[in-house]
Amino acid sequence: MNGADVLIQTAVNAGVDVCFANPGTTEMPLVSALDNVDGIRGVLGLFEGVCTGAADGYGRMKEKPAMTLLHLGPGFANGLANLHNARRAGTPLINVIGEHATWHLPADPPLAMEIAALSGTVSGWHRTVGALGDLSRDTAKAFEAAMAGQIATLVVPHDFQWSAADGQGIVSTEIRTPRFDARAVEHAADLLKANKRTALVLGGPALTRKGLMTAARIRSATGCDLVCETFPARVDRGAGLPDVAKLPYLPEMALEVLKHYDVLIMAGAREPVAFFGYEGSVSRLISDSQRTARIGDHRRNIIYALEALSESVGADRSGEPELARPGRPEMPTGKLDSNKVCTVLAAMQPEKAIIVEEAITSGMGYFAQAAGCPPFTYLTVTGGAIGHGPPCSVGAAVACPDRPVINFQADGSAMYTVQSLWTQARENLNITTLVCNNRSYDILKMEQARAQTGEPGPYGRKLTDLDGIDWVKMGEAQGVSSVAADTVEALVPAIEKALKEDGPHLIEMQLF
Amino acid sequence: MNGADVLIQTAVNAGVDVCFANPGTTEMPLVSALDNVDGIRGVLGLFEGVCTGAADGYGRMKEKPAMTLLHLGPGFANGLANLHNARRAGTPLINVIGEHATWHLPADPPLAMEIAALSGTVSGWHRTVGALGDLSRDTAKAFEAAMAGQIATLVVPHDFQWSAADGQGIVSTEIRTPRFDARAVEHAADLLKANKRTALVLGGPALTRKGLMTAARIRSATGCDLVCETFPARVDRGAGLPDVAKLPYLPEMALEVLKHYDVLIMAGAREPVAFFGYEGSVSRLISDSQRTARIGDHRRNIIYALEALSESVGADRSGEPELARPGRPEMPTGKLDSNKVCTVLAAMQPEKAIIVEEAITSGMGYFAQAAGCPPFTYLTVTGGAIGHGPPCSVGAAVACPDRPVINFQADGSAMYTVQSLWTQARENLNITTLVCNNRSYDILKMEQARAQTGEPGPYGRKLTDLDGIDWVKMGEAQGVSSVAADTVEALVPAIEKALKEDGPHLIEMQLF
Repeated sequence: MNGADVLIQTAVNAGVDVCFANPGTTEMPLVSALDNVDGIRGVLGLFEGVCTGAADGYGRMKEKPAMTLLHLGPGFANGLANLHNARRAGTPLINVIGEHATWHLPADPPLAMEIAALSGTVSGWHRTVGALGDLSRDTAKAFEAAMAGQIATLVVPHDFQWSAADGQGIVSTEIRTPRFDARAVEHAADLLKANKRTALVLGGPALTRKGLMTAARIRSATGCDLVCETFPARVDRGAGLPDVAKLPYLPEMALEVLKHYDVLIMAGAREPVAFFGYEGSVSRLISDSQRTARIGDHRRNIIYALEALSESVGADRSGEPELARPGRPEMPTGKLDSNKVCTVLAAMQPEKAIIVEEAITSGMGYFAQAAGCPPFTYLTVTGGAIGHGPPCSVGAAVACPDRPVINFQADGSAMYTVQSLWTQARENLNITTLVCNNRSYDILKMEQARAQTGEPGPYGRKLTDLDGIDWVKMGEAQGVSSVAADTVEALVPAIEKALKEDGPHLIEMQLF
Repeated sequence: MNGADVLIQTAVNAGVDVCFANPGTTEMPLVSALDNVDGIRGVLGLFEGVCTGAADGYGRMKEKPAMTLLHLGPGFANGLANLHNARRAGTPLINVIGEHATWHLPADPPLAMEIAALSGTVSGWHRTVGALGDLSRDTAKAFEAAMAGQIATLVVPHDFQWSAADGQGIVSTEIRTPRFDARAVEHAADLLKANKRTALVLGGPALTRKGLMTAARIRSATGCDLVCETFPARVDRGAGLPDVAKLPYLPEMALEVLKHYDVLIMAGAREPVAFFGYEGSVSRLISDSQRTARIGDHRRNIIYALEALSESVGADRSGEPELARPGRPEMPTGKLDSNKVCTVLAAMQPEKAIIVEEAITSGMGYFAQAAGCPPFTYLTVTGGAIGHGPPCSVGAAVACPDRPVINFQADGSAMYTVQSLWTQARENLNITTLVCNNRSYDILKMEQARAQTGEPGPYGRKLTDLDGIDWVKMGEAQGVSSVAADTVEALVPAIEKALKEDGPHLIEMQLF
């Protein structure tokens, strides 16, 4: 046994079973350790943003961390954008990064980069292993830290990985759930009983089936409304589950929703703020005259705090949750546009589907239309770092091989992590990628229009247009069965075929 | 005029003429400014690593900075790996990054990330604009800082960009060249005259035509050897230029070269160190018993220091530089392998070509074989962060539209920034990409063999193999004319056609 074996054995014992890897020389002993120690599935990504986005998708579905294996500072840097999304999602996730041998790092070799500085921008927990004997303990601590809903980054010098470590004990992990603040729950209960116009703002674990059912009972018992944060990490949704509306993206529309409430109680959500600050607009979306409260303070106790709140307001006895009834939108016809693709998806998505939505402007009509679909899970980009959908789909499919994954995806965003398609093919994952080809960063055109600076000039157009990508060839280049559709009539059988056949498929939806 | 216009006008006045951009909402006023103010060509990349790698290639060729325009922390993060390469290359480069409006940032909106922490890992100069009135001065300072051969990062809050700034003066830049240390040159001259076995280790600007000619005169006058650093930023090379050998990549091979010298004088190069620390190997490649010296301490004074050294040793009068004679290797035949593709390239590359080499294991035989080619320029990855070749080619082609660019490229590395092909097509750049398809991270297999841990297991293979990429479709998907070749007989006419026709071409070289 060497140090790398000790690390992997500790991770296996803790419950890690997948490693999304893009290793280099300073991680090769850890690659060997995946062979020496049973229990972890190694999945190769050809770009690090694939690995980190996949680990995010995996963690959201499994509620335990996957491990990434990344090469030194530059490899870690390539994974940061999707780690930023994972941080905003509160996803449990462990990064393992090789570092130059302890005796070599002072020479500042070409690949040396300040890994700790990079890590500080995304990690809730960070440690560089300081001694061979600490490897198992540090790995166990990384797992415990990740389970709190944060990114744990463990930097492992190359020499510790290759050094003999026979006889080292494997440290076990212990996951505690911190108690929630019972007084905060009582305070929220008092607010709910006060007959004010009240909204329960749900985020994080409160949007999984259990949290939603509890929240819906509270709604029935108290008459409050439920509001879903704008970019939720995961929503369990569909017929037989409570329907929640997402808070709109644009601040003026979000304000229109929120102004109706005297009281806002956050359950797993942050206080809503504008995504961007616009000239003459606001930053906070809640005014000083509105009262706010919060229940739960940790990913693992939000559900318990919600249940205690339910009990305090008597909802566990009287609250009969109002649930979405089965229902699908009517199938449209003719040439595709962004509204129609939303409708087609909601009309067709199968039971237990995992919908990974990064369709940006093209997907705005989807969420509401899918309220009555057979139960499914919705994942979306939480931190605004685009290029999340394709790798998140990889992670969701690895986590849940028995569930069909549909990646409803904008073309511009897909390009950032387009290498995800290769991993989908290599692992034969059941992912159907629906690419909205509108040949444009449409969201930026919307922002140009909002800024009211007149018609965009040549660069205003040139830097927001992205014509000329053939998505069928892009999928086929990486081994994914691919087809294009420009009408509903062509799209429907293409989706049927993709869902019926094993392995990944890509459908280029040409929007007009 | 608004703040964004002031920034762009300042950059134009300083001499910036290209902006490699992947903007978002917080950069849209700067996009408009590219229309409002004449003088900067905006080039869109569909991934930020394309923009930063292109700016690196541009800066190496033009010896002045291109500007990047990147979106907030996550967009900047995506560009870091190639900025790491640019930092190691000493490339002049300016990043302009939008930040949330000053009054919005404290709300910690979803896309907020610690930009300064990211910047610290690559930037020699960093500033967040603190007041609207500072915009022009800060932009001018960024340019001056970049001209010293480093990355200057300017973070510009969104509200400063859109705010009216009529009547603000545009600050001019002033570029000074710091004097070199004349005593260090005299010391080096004494060492050269002492009849010890001496090598002049060349790096940075010392490898351009002027530096090389001066160094070669010193060689002729003193009998010293010339050594080229292992991963040079730029080498002017070919018939009529001095031939220099690159220091080998593997430490045992580099030690074999360096052990012959009693004295090593660095001119623009760092003291050589091992790329990786291996078990039982060394970190520094120069021993304590060898004497070292250094001339020049700034990108802009290396050449002057070399010229002073030449004068001190009398080489400006007596030194007749020994120059490479014209000569090409003989054209091989039959199925392609990594040796043959090096030979084919050296046998065919046209005069004035810019060869961007990131062929990794497949390219090891190239540099030496090209010594007698018609004069050309060689660029390579300096910091080990792979995914450099395709975007660097974009920057080189934008910088030098009259020179053919050939990107000699490994398949694994190409995937990290594969979106570069789209920009090559959009801008109709004269780039021929020669992809070495060996379906493998061969460098990692070499490292596995070096570690002598026996035959790799299933994951040892699975995480280093990358089968199944169709490079012809990958090129065509992004609008690049593409073809495959598996023999020399097929490759030669494909290269001829690519070089004759306008615009980008990709040739998949299937290696056996």
